[in-house]
Amino acid sequence: MTGEALRVDFARLRYFIAQAFEVVGMPPDDARVVAALMAQADLQGSDGHGVIRLAPYLRRIREGGLNLHPNIRVVREKAAMALVDGDNAMGHLVMKRAAEIAIDKARTAGVAWVGVQWSNHAGPASLYARMAMEQDMIGLYFAVGNANHLPPWGGLDMLLSTNPIAAAIPAGEEPPVVLDMATTVAAYGKVKAKAAKGEAMPEGWMIDREGNPLTDPRRAAEGFLLPIGGYKGYGLALVVGLLAGTLNGAAMGRDTIDFNQDFASKTNTGQAIVAIDPAAFGDLADFKRAVDKLLIDLRRSERMPGVDRIWYPGEQSHERIASYRREGIPLAASVMGTLDRLAEQLDITPLRTL
Amino acid sequence: MTGEALRVDFARLRYFIAQAFEVVGMPPDDARVVAALMAQADLQGSDGHGVIRLAPYLRRIREGGLNLHPNIRVVREKAAMALVDGDNAMGHLVMKRAAEIAIDKARTAGVAWVGVQWSNHAGPASLYARMAMEQDMIGLYFAVGNANHLPPWGGLDMLLSTNPIAAAIPAGEEPPVVLDMATTVAAYGKVKAKAAKGEAMPEGWMIDREGNPLTDPRRAAEGFLLPIGGYKGYGLALVVGLLAGTLNGAAMGRDTIDFNQDFASKTNTGQAIVAIDPAAFGDLADFKRAVDKLLIDLRRSERMPGVDRIWYPGEQSHERIASYRREGIPLAASVMGTLDRLAEQLDITPLRTL
Repeated sequence: MTGEALRVDFARLRYFIAQAFEVVGMPPDDARVVAALMAQADLQGSDGHGVIRLAPYLRRIREGGLNLHPNIRVVREKAAMALVDGDNAMGHLVMKRAAEIAIDKARTAGVAWVGVQWSNHAGPASLYARMAMEQDMIGLYFAVGNANHLPPWGGLDMLLSTNPIAAAIPAGEEPPVVLDMATTVAAYGKVKAKAAKGEAMPEGWMIDREGNPLTDPRRAAEGFLLPIGGYKGYGLALVVGLLAGTLNGAAMGRDTIDFNQDFASKTNTGQAIVAIDPAAFGDLADFKRAVDKLLIDLRRSERMPGVDRIWYPGEQSHERIASYRREGIPLAASVMGTLDRLAEQLDITPLRTL
Repeated sequence: MTGEALRVDFARLRYFIAQAFEVVGMPPDDARVVAALMAQADLQGSDGHGVIRLAPYLRRIREGGLNLHPNIRVVREKAAMALVDGDNAMGHLVMKRAAEIAIDKARTAGVAWVGVQWSNHAGPASLYARMAMEQDMIGLYFAVGNANHLPPWGGLDMLLSTNPIAAAIPAGEEPPVVLDMATTVAAYGKVKAKAAKGEAMPEGWMIDREGNPLTDPRRAAEGFLLPIGGYKGYGLALVVGLLAGTLNGAAMGRDTIDFNQDFASKTNTGQAIVAIDPAAFGDLADFKRAVDKLLIDLRRSERMPGVDRIWYPGEQSHERIASYRREGIPLAASVMGTLDRLAEQLDITPLRTL
């Protein structure tokens, strides 16, 4: 966090976001749900997916690209699956509903997979995997990204997105395992952040159309993000897109709407959530003890020279959540400035004086 | 394939393998199942997981590390899941059974997840995902590798394996999507294949304990495999291990038995197979058409200079299967030599004269 970051507490941030959505016509109950999830994104350090998205979401609402009075409904259903039509609602509302259905079905069936169509951007992938985890289940999440930045391996046409994967696995005494990763080396938000700071990108994030490393983030539009492990990450992005998009009758490939350019068209975003009940596979407490034992072994591993501590995925966000709850969530001055202008336009109380 | 590779046809290879297993006491029906899956591995080009494994499997049987008369059974079950106890059988037998149960349950529940414990190495991950695909379902497969070659990110203790992921997705007119990838840059089987052929590994596959590139496959025991995308691949290997191992009460982390060193102990290998029925989510033919359309778009992408053709995962193995069926499966002379010696020891007809 650069320079003069301001700290806001979770409740105030959530209240401010809810207020903004209510003013533009979102039903209060829905506004509270979306606001809580967006503030949670900032609380866990997923700041590329938190309140920074408020302005583009409001623009999408203004331009008619989001349905504020959706009929989110199950259109196909079996014992261990459902397909949810989000009716072009805010993705947070669609995915919260999908996660609840998956958890409910997994209680009976042991495992459940819920896909969604006609959804929208829903914030960081881990939010929904965590919902299963909070019910002592394993959560997996797959999504089609809302802009294509990735060509097929060896190609130039941007047909694939950063299609993220999340997994959340409950532990016992230890912080849970929470993995939240794009299938590219860097997420596009990180490129934007480098551009904003005037910094160069490391080699390996992007290449240009000749396949040479691209390190100037201002030239990002001339190049592509690189998938993790080369052709393996390309394959993974493709499979995630097929599972989260094509299987659900949602957009994938050429159909993907670039939500940075087009604020009016329905994106038909596809996502999927899987809930797995460890209690179906054995004793829940035994499972948690086995997870703890493994995590402690990882942490206690002998370290390479210069490495202070070994982390596992989810441990850093766990510590961040605790610290941001205590000390407030840091918001960059530039972000706060944008929120001040938004408050003025919407005629609501600014976040900084709440 | 180096120098004087010999070609053998699928049926002869399968027959030879089955004969070898029968001679050491495996029931003929089981021997045929295992032999067919091992020969299929070679047929699809997964030569690190095919007949090259016959000698170590036979040694494991000889040293008492495999149960030739197992009682493979479901120990936990719900509508969309099962936990299978493999009773220390050959992994191929356990996983074939698990895949059949998953496919069967997915027909009713829409999606099913079957985990296994007390299994063993089962060959290439894609074999079992393909079983679901052949029933017009999507197959996903996760496994804990049978030797730890990966420390936690920043660490030196080898606590994780290459934990592979496979996905097989049916298409319509186009070859299906089949992804089969280790969560490391190279699978350990590829390292063994390089050693068997007397070739050096490229930089980026492995590092030694000082972090220097390790390219001599005969020195593999002195170093570590590198995860894809650095810490992302480490996270992915951990999550796959938790899903395929810990969740099933199977070995993971320190419990993992190195099957290259120890041929007598039960490995308690954990694997998981997921079957997803696209017909539960919508019209199957529509799904296949959408997959085809996407794959054609990928193939027709404009290409980078010097790139002759764009491939997607599964396309090359599809062509390889067709060509190896026509022209025979190439076996390196060194592999054939090993099989000749095996035939002599077992007093069975050598593969080359079958």
